Amino acid sequence: MYRSHSCGELRASHITQEVTLAGWVQKSRDKGFMIWVDLRDRYGITQLIFDEERTPKDVFEKAKALGREFVIQVKGSVIEREAKNSKMPTGDIEILVTELTLLNASLLPPFTIEDDTDGGEDIRMKYRYLDIRRNPVKNSLMFRHKVSMEVRKYLSAQDFIEVETPYLIKSTPEGARDFVVPSRMNEGQFYALPQSPQTFKQLLMVGGMDKYFQIVKCFRDEDLRADRQPEFTQIDCEMAFVEQEDILNVFEGLTRHLLSEIKGIELEKFPRMTYDHAMKTYGNDKPDIRFGMEFGELNEVAQHKEFGIFNSAELVVGIAVPGGATYTRKEIDKLVDWVRRPQVGALGMVYVKCNEDGTFKSSVDKFYDQDDLAKWAEVTGAKAGDLICVLSGNTNKVRAQLSALRMEMATRLGLRNPAEFAPLWVIDFPLLELDEETGHYHAMHHPFTSPKPGQLELLDTNPGDVKANAYDLVLNGNEIGGGSIRIHDKEMQATMFKHLGFTEEEAKAQFGFLMDAFQYGAPPHGGLAFGLDRLVAILGGQETIRDFIAFPKNNSGRDVMIDAPATIDEQQLKELSIKLDLH
Amino acid sequence: MYRSHSCGELRASHITQEVTLAGWVQKSRDKGFMIWVDLRDRYGITQLIFDEERTPKDVFEKAKALGREFVIQVKGSVIEREAKNSKMPTGDIEILVTELTLLNASLLPPFTIEDDTDGGEDIRMKYRYLDIRRNPVKNSLMFRHKVSMEVRKYLSAQDFIEVETPYLIKSTPEGARDFVVPSRMNEGQFYALPQSPQTFKQLLMVGGMDKYFQIVKCFRDEDLRADRQPEFTQIDCEMAFVEQEDILNVFEGLTRHLLSEIKGIELEKFPRMTYDHAMKTYGNDKPDIRFGMEFGELNEVAQHKEFGIFNSAELVVGIAVPGGATYTRKEIDKLVDWVRRPQVGALGMVYVKCNEDGTFKSSVDKFYDQDDLAKWAEVTGAKAGDLICVLSGNTNKVRAQLSALRMEMATRLGLRNPAEFAPLWVIDFPLLELDEETGHYHAMHHPFTSPKPGQLELLDTNPGDVKANAYDLVLNGNEIGGGSIRIHDKEMQATMFKHLGFTEEEAKAQFGFLMDAFQYGAPPHGGLAFGLDRLVAILGGQETIRDFIAFPKNNSGRDVMIDAPATIDEQQLKELSIKLDLH
Repeated sequence: MYRSHSCGELRASHITQEVTLAGWVQKSRDKGFMIWVDLRDRYGITQLIFDEERTPKDVFEKAKALGREFVIQVKGSVIEREAKNSKMPTGDIEILVTELTLLNASLLPPFTIEDDTDGGEDIRMKYRYLDIRRNPVKNSLMFRHKVSMEVRKYLSAQDFIEVETPYLIKSTPEGARDFVVPSRMNEGQFYALPQSPQTFKQLLMVGGMDKYFQIVKCFRDEDLRADRQPEFTQIDCEMAFVEQEDILNVFEGLTRHLLSEIKGIELEKFPRMTYDHAMKTYGNDKPDIRFGMEFGELNEVAQHKEFGIFNSAELVVGIAVPGGATYTRKEIDKLVDWVRRPQVGALGMVYVKCNEDGTFKSSVDKFYDQDDLAKWAEVTGAKAGDLICVLSGNTNKVRAQLSALRMEMATRLGLRNPAEFAPLWVIDFPLLELDEETGHYHAMHHPFTSPKPGQLELLDTNPGDVKANAYDLVLNGNEIGGGSIRIHDKEMQATMFKHLGFTEEEAKAQFGFLMDAFQYGAPPHGGLAFGLDRLVAILGGQETIRDFIAFPKNNSGRDVMIDAPATIDEQQLKELSIKLDLH
Repeated sequence: MYRSHSCGELRASHITQEVTLAGWVQKSRDKGFMIWVDLRDRYGITQLIFDEERTPKDVFEKAKALGREFVIQVKGSVIEREAKNSKMPTGDIEILVTELTLLNASLLPPFTIEDDTDGGEDIRMKYRYLDIRRNPVKNSLMFRHKVSMEVRKYLSAQDFIEVETPYLIKSTPEGARDFVVPSRMNEGQFYALPQSPQTFKQLLMVGGMDKYFQIVKCFRDEDLRADRQPEFTQIDCEMAFVEQEDILNVFEGLTRHLLSEIKGIELEKFPRMTYDHAMKTYGNDKPDIRFGMEFGELNEVAQHKEFGIFNSAELVVGIAVPGGATYTRKEIDKLVDWVRRPQVGALGMVYVKCNEDGTFKSSVDKFYDQDDLAKWAEVTGAKAGDLICVLSGNTNKVRAQLSALRMEMATRLGLRNPAEFAPLWVIDFPLLELDEETGHYHAMHHPFTSPKPGQLELLDTNPGDVKANAYDLVLNGNEIGGGSIRIHDKEMQATMFKHLGFTEEEAKAQFGFLMDAFQYGAPPHGGLAFGLDRLVAILGGQETIRDFIAFPKNNSGRDVMIDAPATIDEQQLKELSIKLDLH
């Protein structure tokens, strides 16, 4: 062992002890007759002292040559610091060094190994091994480990079994794009990497394994939006002989356990909200309920006046921004510009200032009198001093636009406190979703989700109205988990595939094994999957997942550190019976 | 919830309680006026009783129609059994059923869901979800979970951090064949699936994460030998600021913990043996030391007589098979046939019977007298009643042959007791291994393994003699883990690549990121990886890993249940910029 103690361990009680430490030179201050070195390892920083009088001459000379990030081993005695540093756990002591071994030198790192580094994202990714030395990344990875361990302990204690499902499976064109893997031994054929272990966990239920979980990598070959990764980690769970209520309770228990163990926060029973209510009230199926600004639908009170834009709109809807009545004309114009950005896409915004004196001043005073506007205030819950922002248009679009505005205003107003946790179950999701481009319905959750009892008939007449036994767990405006009660009946699964546009042959070729399995005593079952990357980021109080992933990829799916993907040689291609077909 | 209790839970103390159970019909006995059904779930079996007098008529009729593996829910009261079954935990009670709900019917399963099933390997793999209902598979998967959890708990308690490393990495032609993944977003380029997270765990050490582990899937596209899988699981570990001794101690501690927690077996400090000693004494670098039959090298006492075969042999070596002196001529002939099988490859076998009266009878009495043979007995440790089996030839080959014979004889003699655990560290492995086909040396462990101090000079003159800081953990004749102290110096790593036949450009293209990392303060480090599939199988007392993997692949790398790999459509190929190139 290269050390007797870590660099985060020594305290006043160790004074006079002889110790051996090893680590990295964080920084070095050379006063000529005295040198201080901050020695860092995973556990902390300890100050080393070399002085002309007390340190052997050769050691002193060696200390002079130390640069940032050099790896050294030192022996010495723990002494009391003259100037104690109460901000450091080891701030009461320092090490008077008697022996110094250089274990490895270092080039000058391309960015500073500090909490606030001078390195940009790109350089930090290229030298990720140096980035990981920084506390924000190191602590995030350790935090992730802690969350994963707690998940495993909690579920294991409840008789869940972690089962490893295969990574080399079969491609299914349904849903997102698969990553595929050519098979050398099966010429012309390909494995696919799993987008989730969905069918396997259902087969485990058929196999009687009744409480399954797995923390597992999943893969999606999608064009990457910011903060998405081609490989991501799920906490994947499934239970048999349960109803939706049982699943909500178990995983609410898990989430509450994590918040309690890891954040020290005790939460009451999680609120529940239907999908329809969430869309109507927040314009969003993953509402952040840490703050209000709930939607007020204004059709009744704003239409049938002479304002044509509202009269022709499917939905007129507003929110009351707290304290917004004081915004200047310029500030409001900027807000209008903000909602008109292509990312939001509104055509314009109507506003009403709710003055402190009870009067209203709006951008549509020409069409609405004070009584009209007072009704708007009532519907949106606006108080004196608030600003009512109103958008109008196609229902789905305007809800999304106003939701974006609501979130933006909450951020500006500091209402999205990362130390506050507001979980929410959103339930009763629609079974199907209309693809506006193709005019076809596809499964909102996935094709294995069961419709609510008695709604199967609607599939033919009003497919968009069918509700599913599907639910999401939302935390602070992020979907952290989602799942459903599954179909466990062969006929119903076949009906579902038919409605999703599969021919009988396609359904059999892709999912025949699952439908076969349903014929051999499949129990009722359902489950849920959490996105671990997102979950740990939110629990860690962060908005971005990247620091919680040891070696993330960039938006082109590249690992810039190892420079992957890369070309492979002709021999490899030949063995795999493929060749390049560049466009 | 579909049940108030599991099928393994009810005891005499529950008698008179009303309960709800759900599960599968294991079997049903219909006596006309009375029907017994064994109801099974993951936790056990509970007997249900329906009788003409006490059971509602409609329930009784429904019970008559139940077939094997039907999924049902029943309500009823716990009553005392007339004929108790002390072999079943629930054998004191049965359930007098008042309500019966058929949750799902079942076709007749293609094999019996019994511990000793009538289903062969192929059919069980095709219907793996039914196979998993059988105790031997179900218990193996639960056992695997338990082992994994204990590994995680033990290492976490010792400050190890589980870090997830990426699955989409870069192909390196060195070593085994990679599975590759075409990148759609990076045309003409490929990811590779990791054969191990080797370079990433080393980068984590450079990143200061000083104690890392991960239970992780790894991939090798090799022609599959029996009991090998293209995807397999490793317990991958790495530590910084350690020497070999530290690593052996930590992972000996882990192994001892597993044996203690899971098997209730307390072991002393594990013995250690050099690679050279293992090869000389057992002909094998993973000797099973649960039994003796150590090799006796007979060159000195058997050469320079008139037996030409021995005189021209590089090595003459024998083992003493306990009690073998009583073998008949026919039995011995069969043994000679056995060693001549192509899988073993010996040309013949010389034997010596050590008679109870102290005399010897050998197949080479023409060349050797009693005194000669007494010396053979001394060297091989043969006692009266034993049979000395002697092979000769090329050292490497004859050692492998005699090792195979030693294992076979131990199996026949019942000396390989699966309930006995004999761990062993094999240390001081050679750094390089001669590829007899190409005449080139390649890394025995991998190119990142460090040579023993002071042996670097030998690389140029006697590369085969260089010993490495490399070690294997052997359990009952199986390598369950292996690792090494790594190179952490850029120059030494470059030297190593050169000796392994890499050009400077190749080394840079494939491993430049690692050598770059070594320039920024890489600490001394080393590690080890356990093969989890094998480890759980051995701990579970089994020779084969297949029942410890939920969804294994067959020897052609196929999943016969989901029928993967499979063809993918033209559109997918096109998006990936590849086309088929069938031979």
